[in-house]
Amino acid sequence: MKLFDGGRAPNPRRVRVFLAEKGIAVPLVPVDMGALEHKQPPISSRNPLRRLPVLELDDGTILTESVAICRYFEELHPEPALFGNGALGKAQVEMWQRRMEFNLLSSVTQAFRHIHPAMKEWEIPQIPEWGEANKPKAVEFLMLLDAELGSREFVAGDSYSIADITGLIAIDFMKPARIKVPEECTNVSRWHQAISSRPSAAA
Amino acid sequence: MKLFDGGRAPNPRRVRVFLAEKGIAVPLVPVDMGALEHKQPPISSRNPLRRLPVLELDDGTILTESVAICRYFEELHPEPALFGNGALGKAQVEMWQRRMEFNLLSSVTQAFRHIHPAMKEWEIPQIPEWGEANKPKAVEFLMLLDAELGSREFVAGDSYSIADITGLIAIDFMKPARIKVPEECTNVSRWHQAISSRPSAAA
Repeated sequence: MKLFDGGRAPNPRRVRVFLAEKGIAVPLVPVDMGALEHKQPPISSRNPLRRLPVLELDDGTILTESVAICRYFEELHPEPALFGNGALGKAQVEMWQRRMEFNLLSSVTQAFRHIHPAMKEWEIPQIPEWGEANKPKAVEFLMLLDAELGSREFVAGDSYSIADITGLIAIDFMKPARIKVPEECTNVSRWHQAISSRPSAAA
Repeated sequence: MKLFDGGRAPNPRRVRVFLAEKGIAVPLVPVDMGALEHKQPPISSRNPLRRLPVLELDDGTILTESVAICRYFEELHPEPALFGNGALGKAQVEMWQRRMEFNLLSSVTQAFRHIHPAMKEWEIPQIPEWGEANKPKAVEFLMLLDAELGSREFVAGDSYSIADITGLIAIDFMKPARIKVPEECTNVSRWHQAISSRPSAAA
């Protein structure tokens, strides 16, 4: 098994943090996204969407999409459960995972891709007005999240989950996207500091 | 248990089709999205994101996000499995579910929301250039999907899954978004016709 990895980009990092939390070591194959190596073989021949990360199993089976790769390892190594426990617990993690993904990570990504000069060849056409429109969407969601985090330790409940990992990579991606966590979001800041201090955050 | 439903909108329909495939009957509470009833109580008090569908359990627990609601029922009623079987099967359904969601449904939704005059008060600011940019994204993904569907019956393999449901609602949503399936995508057309003729498609 090997994992084609994309360095600092959010989705490759999401899988590395997940594996670190699980205590699973997978051989990494570094791919230089800055040199657009993910648009060429061996990535383009494995993933028609030409994106990272890509997991290749020993029999040649390919898995792509960061959350799908995480779910594969969750099924193989159920503990610690990062997708929740029981019908309701799993559904609540899925609910928050999607909320973090669609309302935070996606908004931050759109702001970055449509405004940052380095993304000119990645996002065609770049539409700065759409990038700017996403900044308040991200901030508005952080206010909602702050209210939720006033009554519990982690995004989806009392246990760390993949929803926290998606939140970690989204908040850290806000720096290059030039969006700031509002000062009044003290619960978000407390939570982000706590998950950033876990050893997995360095993965 | 009751499900606050949003009629013809894609995400409420996704849950209804899923429940029909499972053979599960859940009491529906209709909410008039055309009258923006989802922005008011009892929806806004149950979902801070003010979106549908919303599932309320008998003890008052709230679940939102269509795929999270589907996963709850998958855990309670595992057969027929619509999220896949086994570690690899579940990961492959997740992979295709995400591909259908991010590359097809999301592109169609953005085209609809940013171009259709009826969405002026829903999507602020409406950015027609961004809406138009999404049409070729959807079409490009359909070409990729067509190549995949040349060698298998359903999106994620030989069994019908939630990835097919997401595909069904995305393709049907292309009509109001004014995007057409390219004529050369004969595999996509065959697949769409097959899943549209299942009784669940009328849910």
